[in-house]
Amino acid sequence: MNTIALADYDIQIGTIWTTWNKFLQTRNYSKVIVLVDENTKQHCLPIWEQNTNVSEYLLVKIAAGEQHKTIETCQIIWSKLMNGDVNRSALMVNLGGGVIGDMGGFCASTFKRGIDFVQFPSTLLSQVDASIGGKLGIDFQQVKNSVGVFRNPQGVFIEPAFLKTLPQREVRSGFAEIIKHSLIADATHWAHLSQLEHLEGVDWPSYLAPSLEIKKAVVTEDPFEKGLRKALNFGHTIGHAIESVFLESKYPLLHGEAIAIGMICEAYLSHKIVGLSAPELQDISDFILKIYDAVSLSSSDYPTFLELMQKDKKNERDEINFSLIPEIGKVKVNQTASKQLIRESLDYYCQLIIKN
Amino acid sequence: MNTIALADYDIQIGTIWTTWNKFLQTRNYSKVIVLVDENTKQHCLPIWEQNTNVSEYLLVKIAAGEQHKTIETCQIIWSKLMNGDVNRSALMVNLGGGVIGDMGGFCASTFKRGIDFVQFPSTLLSQVDASIGGKLGIDFQQVKNSVGVFRNPQGVFIEPAFLKTLPQREVRSGFAEIIKHSLIADATHWAHLSQLEHLEGVDWPSYLAPSLEIKKAVVTEDPFEKGLRKALNFGHTIGHAIESVFLESKYPLLHGEAIAIGMICEAYLSHKIVGLSAPELQDISDFILKIYDAVSLSSSDYPTFLELMQKDKKNERDEINFSLIPEIGKVKVNQTASKQLIRESLDYYCQLIIKN
Repeated sequence: MNTIALADYDIQIGTIWTTWNKFLQTRNYSKVIVLVDENTKQHCLPIWEQNTNVSEYLLVKIAAGEQHKTIETCQIIWSKLMNGDVNRSALMVNLGGGVIGDMGGFCASTFKRGIDFVQFPSTLLSQVDASIGGKLGIDFQQVKNSVGVFRNPQGVFIEPAFLKTLPQREVRSGFAEIIKHSLIADATHWAHLSQLEHLEGVDWPSYLAPSLEIKKAVVTEDPFEKGLRKALNFGHTIGHAIESVFLESKYPLLHGEAIAIGMICEAYLSHKIVGLSAPELQDISDFILKIYDAVSLSSSDYPTFLELMQKDKKNERDEINFSLIPEIGKVKVNQTASKQLIRESLDYYCQLIIKN
Repeated sequence: MNTIALADYDIQIGTIWTTWNKFLQTRNYSKVIVLVDENTKQHCLPIWEQNTNVSEYLLVKIAAGEQHKTIETCQIIWSKLMNGDVNRSALMVNLGGGVIGDMGGFCASTFKRGIDFVQFPSTLLSQVDASIGGKLGIDFQQVKNSVGVFRNPQGVFIEPAFLKTLPQREVRSGFAEIIKHSLIADATHWAHLSQLEHLEGVDWPSYLAPSLEIKKAVVTEDPFEKGLRKALNFGHTIGHAIESVFLESKYPLLHGEAIAIGMICEAYLSHKIVGLSAPELQDISDFILKIYDAVSLSSSDYPTFLELMQKDKKNERDEINFSLIPEIGKVKVNQTASKQLIRESLDYYCQLIIKN
């Protein structure tokens, strides 16, 4: 088992169950609540239940999917906690992907002004992205994570077995964050992972650990996203906007699928603004398009993309904020781009997928 | 002007405007949002506006009253912030009583995972109670403050002129917390204030400062309400339950009016459980009944009172938690009482008001 020790909690990766049961035994919580959706209830809860020494727990099940990451679902969760007489000495276990972790963590952090919670991330994306940083929240008025708090869990337990039941699309989505971590901070890791021809049969824990170390280094420096942490935003300014628009369409994109597009566009901006070389831009674009399906963007959506970027919570004053890469493995935060150049970067992606 | 310096912010009492304008000038916020209700818009906003050097601000008005301290009102507030393109470098000014301060602080703390906020408490209650402690939140399913967070404001500015427009009932409500602070921690302050025959023409700042010093001492020791801070709960276990039930009735009680009843009941419990002397119990009861109107409690509501106490977020395991006073000026936290004794304490209050 790998342990990544953070200032106030540990991330366990691999054979987690002995540590988990010891955690439960020493903490002596008044009640354990387990939050699941219909997918994790079917695929992960049996594994959790079989390996956890707990005589009873309160199960809270919500509907799966980003479209349910809303204040209405929070009200359902808070209600169940209230009706279950959950007190402040209880523990909430978030067993699921990013939606469960973000929203369950937010509900735990705000119920009676905060009860303890632990994360059992069940998707590659949530294992790599949501395990560090304490960013919790929900979507509000179509804007992702626009209501939330920063708060750390008491522990994160990563069970690789959960990934085996995951559709390949979900795996690809998580892989985008691993790509991002290498691009902003670790050229060696990039050189290694960009050798992959496809994502079948990959040994994920060995890719997760270095990725989590990069995120740890960034977040430790800047827990409240005042500066350096914005590095993690690479690919996300444009990616989030694309994700939000597609969320409303018949064919929603997964987070990482949108971020993959965002990284190509923002690599283009990096080339134009902070001097990313043409060959590196090419390498990044080629690798991402090898792994991810092409997505048609309509130029009629560009104004909506720009409007959503304008509302991004990372902006300061009225400028759209980007984190760009002057070369693979390096990052410059607090960059800005004209709307014209942003449109050009979207065109760049569109032309690439026509060529492919 | 009095300044009470806390670890990460200051409370200003008295002639606040120079300090306030300096605060605004040095912080250079991207936008200022002012949250008011219809009362503070009429009585306080003109004073605020006249004395504040700000060229423009976004006004957010909500309906006055505890019955609007809900997640639905939060959604209205978040919407206005979202539609006003408020970014993370903005400042929210909560101009009003406890509802505005608690709910506005909660909305600010959760909007884009947290923007800065300052409190301009406009009632005696919010000046003495909400200025220290970082307790923010809303009522959920009839249970007071059951959804919220702990977070400190960037500053608190107490303008005595705001109290001049306050109805006497509101003043009495705030005075309950001043009584409470003296009962749990300062027998001298109690001896002084219990000389008051009525609350007309009182010089409030001179009563506020010692009261805030008591709260500061308690909260500094225990910011997250793990132990000592529960001292402040004296009168509140029973008082909150009474307040919640009356909130649903035709004649809602103000917070302090309910707490005044709670303090008499819990003084009775203190007499029975931790040895508060009979004369001190008598003094406390007499003084509170001199200042506050009698309220008829129906024994048919006792089961609901007890059920609500059972759900109090300060409970640990299944016992109802009390902070009791062995003598005036001293406190013992984590006390518990049988349901029978709690009923007796409510009967004690009922008999007292019949005698009076």
